[in-house]
Amino acid sequence: MKLVIDTDPGIDDAYAILLAFKSLEVEVVGLTTVFGNVPTPLATRNALFLLEMAGRGDVPVAEGAHGQLDDGEEKRIAHWVHGEDGMGNTNPPEPQGSPCGKRAAEFIVEQANKLKGELNILALGPLTNLAEAVRLDPAIKDKVKRVLVLGGAFKTNGNVHPAAEANIYGDPLAADVVFSSGMEIYTVGLDATHLCVMPEGDINSLRDSMGEFGSFLHSISGFYIDFHFKVWGQRMMHPHDAIALVALLRPDLFEWREGAVCVATDGLCKGMTVMDYGGKKMAWGEQMEPEESGPRGVGLPGGGGSQYNQDEAVRLRV
Amino acid sequence: MKLVIDTDPGIDDAYAILLAFKSLEVEVVGLTTVFGNVPTPLATRNALFLLEMAGRGDVPVAEGAHGQLDDGEEKRIAHWVHGEDGMGNTNPPEPQGSPCGKRAAEFIVEQANKLKGELNILALGPLTNLAEAVRLDPAIKDKVKRVLVLGGAFKTNGNVHPAAEANIYGDPLAADVVFSSGMEIYTVGLDATHLCVMPEGDINSLRDSMGEFGSFLHSISGFYIDFHFKVWGQRMMHPHDAIALVALLRPDLFEWREGAVCVATDGLCKGMTVMDYGGKKMAWGEQMEPEESGPRGVGLPGGGGSQYNQDEAVRLRV
Ligand SMILES: [Ca+2]
Ligand SMILES: [Ca+2]
Repeated sequence: MKLVIDTDPGIDDAYAILLAFKSLEVEVVGLTTVFGNVPTPLATRNALFLLEMAGRGDVPVAEGAHGQLDDGEEKRIAHWVHGEDGMGNTNPPEPQGSPCGKRAAEFIVEQANKLKGELNILALGPLTNLAEAVRLDPAIKDKVKRVLVLGGAFKTNGNVHPAAEANIYGDPLAADVVFSSGMEIYTVGLDATHLCVMPEGDINSLRDSMGEFGSFLHSISGFYIDFHFKVWGQRMMHPHDAIALVALLRPDLFEWREGAVCVATDGLCKGMTVMDYGGKKMAWGEQMEPEESGPRGVGLPGGGGSQYNQDEAVRLRV
Repeated sequence: MKLVIDTDPGIDDAYAILLAFKSLEVEVVGLTTVFGNVPTPLATRNALFLLEMAGRGDVPVAEGAHGQLDDGEEKRIAHWVHGEDGMGNTNPPEPQGSPCGKRAAEFIVEQANKLKGELNILALGPLTNLAEAVRLDPAIKDKVKRVLVLGGAFKTNGNVHPAAEANIYGDPLAADVVFSSGMEIYTVGLDATHLCVMPEGDINSLRDSMGEFGSFLHSISGFYIDFHFKVWGQRMMHPHDAIALVALLRPDLFEWREGAVCVATDGLCKGMTVMDYGGKKMAWGEQMEPEESGPRGVGLPGGGGSQYNQDEAVRLRV
């Protein structure tokens, strides 16, 4: 499986990236970087560091957006979750390499064209780079094999506020662009990742396992576990990004629901992923009788704006 | 149980109102009317008609708001669900009585004061009248025993659009006012009512049952079943409003979750009920470290606006 990982490393990003190198079926063709857990330049630095630590300095890194789509705002850097350095304040050494010089979106489009339908994308941060790629080449929807998005909260609370999960909240407009792009998208949200608990004892076992990356992963996890303890009251962590990779490799381990998704870009629900589960043929307002509304297209208040468009094959984990 | 029913009759409202008269423990102290299934004057007319048909012309009817809180807009009259007359196009006779002359909110406040903590309110339409009552007398929160709201969609799609249920969508601001009022509120949303299916055969059995209201209820249900068939593909109905009365009388038949609720008043999620299930101590933005955020108060983007305030004891069915 040829894979680009779009990432904001990030402690759980590190788990996912290193797990990808330990997965025999995965060929990582590049990392692209984005803001979120850390600012983008630091994400790039950490991506290079992780590659070099894994002995994979040959894998290209393409730096991506420094802020959200259109307005460029860098909204929310989760330093209190991942540390000032994104690696749990362990101060990793400066990497030797440097990014490839292409912008992330450009790199993604290039790989999609080059790999002729064989490119998979694992999106582990805000979706700005993917949205830029969609705008750069809307035909990318037919060129990418599958996108696995880590993000959203469908039938559960978010983690930024009750309606929004952090990656989607990081760039709601970009997420809306991606979810309505027509790409083959699978999404793993908090509904799934909050069910996965990695107790501190398991992370200690990882350290003691003699595995290649066990000691390193243990070293960066203490800060992350401290955060989880503060907000959940348990010494454990949710390895969100690693779960997303597992979902890409082993979708059979998950239950999936199919439907259209829109993202709220402002108001109380800013960053919320709203999915139409498709049970009802909806009518809206007095102008639209049920018989007039198509079974798979639902108009929304205000008209002309966002649409819950069920025509696109968007598949999501809920 | 002393009960005011706030209602927009409405076919399922008729089920709930007549069921209340057949419930030995219920003493209906009045009906208040609101727009929703029908415009408010027609809701008043239908309320009077139903009382007289039930031989209970002694029960007062107080007409309520003709449009939503503050802007007075009458947004959405569901004639395609309940018929032009709200009674499935059966053209009920003109009632003899007339409303009591008090505005609904005024009547509710008056009853709350008079009944000294014994008043229950069953809210079967948009929450405009209750919100007006809260504004008229904010101390009503300590005077009303319990409010049972029929409305919202928590872990399921709405019925107006994927994020919003019709009663809440009918006046989102009023709903937000009510949910943050501090009243003892139980809410039955589509999560519960869409699980309750009354097949056409059961409604035919009701007609044949020799019960006092069976034939009437059957007569108004045909139109409603036709609507359900159009949008759900089955000849059945969801008796939403009657389920809400059952939940008030027999809360033990339901599972309840407790938490704070806010309502989105605009944007993609307009009319959405967002509940904080309380699992996480949340932090928002760079300014707020987890240790600084109180465990039960969560600030939202934009600040100074709506708050997910968990301090109020709001209980909801999800
Ligand atoms: Ca990440
Ligand atoms: Ca009603």
